[in-house]
Amino acid sequence: MGEASEEVILLDFWTSMYGMRARVALEEKEIKYEHKQEDLIGNKSELLLRMNPIHKTIPVLIHDGKPVCESLIAVEYIDEVWKGKASLLPSDPYERAQARFWADFLDKKVYEYGRQVTWSRKGEEPEAAKIGLTNSIKTLEEEALGDKLYFGGEKFGYLDVVVIGLCSWLHTYEIICNFNAATECPKLVAWAKRCMERDSVSKSLPEPKKLYEAILGFKKVFGLD
Amino acid sequence: MGEASEEVILLDFWTSMYGMRARVALEEKEIKYEHKQEDLIGNKSELLLRMNPIHKTIPVLIHDGKPVCESLIAVEYIDEVWKGKASLLPSDPYERAQARFWADFLDKKVYEYGRQVTWSRKGEEPEAAKIGLTNSIKTLEEEALGDKLYFGGEKFGYLDVVVIGLCSWLHTYEIICNFNAATECPKLVAWAKRCMERDSVSKSLPEPKKLYEAILGFKKVFGLD
Repeated sequence: MGEASEEVILLDFWTSMYGMRARVALEEKEIKYEHKQEDLIGNKSELLLRMNPIHKTIPVLIHDGKPVCESLIAVEYIDEVWKGKASLLPSDPYERAQARFWADFLDKKVYEYGRQVTWSRKGEEPEAAKIGLTNSIKTLEEEALGDKLYFGGEKFGYLDVVVIGLCSWLHTYEIICNFNAATECPKLVAWAKRCMERDSVSKSLPEPKKLYEAILGFKKVFGLD
Repeated sequence: MGEASEEVILLDFWTSMYGMRARVALEEKEIKYEHKQEDLIGNKSELLLRMNPIHKTIPVLIHDGKPVCESLIAVEYIDEVWKGKASLLPSDPYERAQARFWADFLDKKVYEYGRQVTWSRKGEEPEAAKIGLTNSIKTLEEEALGDKLYFGGEKFGYLDVVVIGLCSWLHTYEIICNFNAATECPKLVAWAKRCMERDSVSKSLPEPKKLYEAILGFKKVFGLD
């Protein structure tokens, strides 16, 4: 377990699906941390640039002055350092490999298609990305969640932490892709509702409508409206 | 340690930097495996399509009938299952996070720029990708290797396994990017030579000139020459 003197800082931005992973993992472990919002549009902090000089992206977890970058790596780090409380990754190597496979799938497919549809000019979202996004969300539901209570099986675990941020974005994706999550991926929606009953999740995720409004605002700034 | 009855198969293709990772990890652990070359151009095996229906890519490690896809995940799986011999990932959580960070950097930057320069029409390789490739190789050398004997420090470890395939490709990248590895990243070149003294590496990596000839052949097939 961590020591009383230790310092944990999270450089983050509230709409970030990646940032949400780190927030939920820290909350699951009941780790007190200082939450610093970055101004990502042209005014990144000197601390962020120093802590993540390679990618200059959030989230960055700073533990006693040392940075851990990239959200999946930060979640594994949190799980390995604060072992005592709420183990996240499964202990079986094959199940760990499967959980990591779907985490990677989420980043390579869902997140990437999501990025393409979100940051296109309104009405000009690439059709292939819209289809790719809805199909990959459905694949994730069918293949990785199925009829289980959680992605982690009987208990909320690593892959739940990794996927949950998607649920804040689902409303935005529904509008952009003309997609109805309740009918097209009902198991995922039921799972999200189940997760939202956890304090770790409900206090870490922004309200979906507020997130959508913010995205519209950013698109205006970028001239994509 | 694995049992005598266990079956390990690697679906692979000899030029793949990703495949090389799995090969070297298996050799480091002294695991006997059946090595199956895939015909990736329009004739993937039924076994590959069944074992990796999501991405349909190599390498796939099949352990007692169960597939592990994605090379970084396969290397971690191999390290976790065959614990007894040649531990690959560092035991310290922060060092593990750093090793994973550079593995991820390799895939997001070096591999991605490498893909762009390799599969462009001859003479039309995008300038930004050429610069990105050489810069990211230099960053990897300076920031992750530095003056150490291995990426893993005093001993050959996870990040060495992950990076070593790049060395088979360096000759190809030198030609395409008009880049001289011996003068621009001498520490990386010295490290590669050191690694090649290991049986696990020398028997797993193709000869750089043979690889370049093969790439020229594939470019002809794809009409990129």
